[in-house]
Amino acid sequence: MGGSLALALRLAQRMSAPRFALHLTLVDRNPETRAAVQHLGDLVTDSFAEGVAHADWIILAVPVRAVIGALVQLPDLRPDGCMVMDVGSSKVEIGTAMDSLPDYFHAIGGHPMCGKETSGFGSATPDLYREQTFVLCHNSRTTDEVAEQAAILLELIGAKALYLSPVLHDNIVAAISHLPYVVSAALMQTAVKVQSEHTWQVSASGFRDTSRVSGTNSTMMLDILLTNKTAILAQLENYKQQLTAVAQLIESEDEDALKQWLMKTEAHYWAYRKIKE
Amino acid sequence: MGGSLALALRLAQRMSAPRFALHLTLVDRNPETRAAVQHLGDLVTDSFAEGVAHADWIILAVPVRAVIGALVQLPDLRPDGCMVMDVGSSKVEIGTAMDSLPDYFHAIGGHPMCGKETSGFGSATPDLYREQTFVLCHNSRTTDEVAEQAAILLELIGAKALYLSPVLHDNIVAAISHLPYVVSAALMQTAVKVQSEHTWQVSASGFRDTSRVSGTNSTMMLDILLTNKTAILAQLENYKQQLTAVAQLIESEDEDALKQWLMKTEAHYWAYRKIKE
Repeated sequence: MGGSLALALRLAQRMSAPRFALHLTLVDRNPETRAAVQHLGDLVTDSFAEGVAHADWIILAVPVRAVIGALVQLPDLRPDGCMVMDVGSSKVEIGTAMDSLPDYFHAIGGHPMCGKETSGFGSATPDLYREQTFVLCHNSRTTDEVAEQAAILLELIGAKALYLSPVLHDNIVAAISHLPYVVSAALMQTAVKVQSEHTWQVSASGFRDTSRVSGTNSTMMLDILLTNKTAILAQLENYKQQLTAVAQLIESEDEDALKQWLMKTEAHYWAYRKIKE
Repeated sequence: MGGSLALALRLAQRMSAPRFALHLTLVDRNPETRAAVQHLGDLVTDSFAEGVAHADWIILAVPVRAVIGALVQLPDLRPDGCMVMDVGSSKVEIGTAMDSLPDYFHAIGGHPMCGKETSGFGSATPDLYREQTFVLCHNSRTTDEVAEQAAILLELIGAKALYLSPVLHDNIVAAISHLPYVVSAALMQTAVKVQSEHTWQVSASGFRDTSRVSGTNSTMMLDILLTNKTAILAQLENYKQQLTAVAQLIESEDEDALKQWLMKTEAHYWAYRKIKE
């Protein structure tokens, strides 16, 4: 996320005439990542303190609980305040942490809806955000200044802003993003228990796509599952009811009802695809 | 499946020097499909009886129970016998139906592992089978002659043969193909119940891929779920245990155990991807 953002901003800078000033400080703990992004940053450092010391605008692109940890450190590191945004996948707990910042901070929550199952700078692309929905969540530290800055950022990287409350955001992503992860992960865990040397040979694009997000970085997912626990558990409960319902239809061989369920599913899928085209 | 097979065979014919003889009769109930495949077939008809009347080799590319229905009709339509194969997604019940053919029939079960969520001739491509696993299942009507014919067919369309017993086939695909469908379908059914106008706007590639196979043709899936019921229900039970386990880890916030589960999932996914590369 952070790497793609840096690439997208540099690309936007290159494409604009006249060029706008863009001083980028990139902070990463991983020495390989720092080496890879050397050409992108005016300053590349492993020190969060050094990285944020003179920033007008800080973007936290780390797992949710690391975002919260960083927000807690900010008042000490920046007693003068600054603008701050994050790109974490759950927004209620981050919003609460932003609420707790001193009032000379300007803060806004962000969540670009364009994840990949791969992570690290090797997967970064400047067009990751292009035409993708980027949710913005206001909190009590959201000023006009930071909201305007966020809107400019989204325009530069080609993303489409969608303003949601943190609670609504977390409820929607529980069903549409976090549930798919759990569903996919449980599928992978089930598949590896099949006692056959031929399992992967037989697996095709259906398994590949349905299992894809199970490859998502586990540290990121741990933070998501723990910080959006209630909404995710509620969606998992809804999901299990659907599974139980279809299992009963198969078990009882209630052909008419099963056919109805399958036809509705097929229709829902193609209606969704039509909307997304 | 049938459309792609016809295209693949015509392509193979065009590419071979000297050209081999290939008389293709295409049978389809849908007049639009018949119009679309007119150029591919030497004879295009809506009559199964007419289509199979003079065939040396019949390939049944219809849903599983339609395959079984066609096999039941064959002895009357072809009192002289012929070679027959199918491309249905479950193999035990089809194998039993092939076993019941008179002994002057030569029959073999087939299942190409290259489904699409779209159906109809509009989705057909000549390279659908290329480099894909194509399961072949022997039964008591499988002669050397039909086995050799099937091997030649797979070579022509570029598929990789994998010989499995019908029972092993059905158990593996229950976990690796039919379970992913049910998992994906239940996800779609859960997502459409989210009470928000923003659901689809927020949905991204994770939902898109995890839900993709929920768009599969419902008639085809109905036959699969009913003819591979026992194996699918067993895998659904395993799957629900995985879901319950991870839900409990989230609920109890057992961070270490949850992290272990997530890390194992991530490792399994990337091990599978490495094998498939």
